[in-house]
Amino acid sequence: MPLYLDIHHLVEGVTAEQIEEAHEKDLAVQKKYGVKYLRYWYDVTSGRAFCLMEAPSKEAATAVHREAHGLLADEIFEVTEGV
Amino acid sequence: MPLYLDIHHLVEGVTAEQIEEAHEKDLAVQKKYGVKYLRYWYDVTSGRAFCLMEAPSKEAATAVHREAHGLLADEIFEVTEGV
Repeated sequence: MPLYLDIHHLVEGVTAEQIEEAHEKDLAVQKKYGVKYLRYWYDVTSGRAFCLMEAPSKEAATAVHREAHGLLADEIFEVTEGV
Repeated sequence: MPLYLDIHHLVEGVTAEQIEEAHEKDLAVQKKYGVKYLRYWYDVTSGRAFCLMEAPSKEAATAVHREAHGLLADEIFEVTEGV
């Protein structure tokens, strides 16, 4: 299954709690789209969040965020993990 | 130890082999700066590479790339891993 890394440019002032809450919503709907969130990281100072996921397509990955909370990623890349 | 995620905007046409070779050079010098590369991902189509590392500071993380191969990250974020 393809691996994707997406980048969210969130608003300044976003809190860790808000990001974690959004992620919980992603987890709640991911199965419907065949997506599996693997890990995520965030930096509240710059308002960035990064999600690593397996998904059948970029569109499926986007669909999860759209249904879960509407906070779509600003960028998404199909990535290979280096060894 | 702080956790950092950096983003490289590489040239189009960069190959997986070139990225993996650069990463090997990072691994070879990381200890000198107290840095520990954890994982990395790349997308040759868009020329992006992402490195996840533990480092004592942003400057230490940058110093590894500078000494190893000179390909500095375009962006670096101190991140928290979500649970």
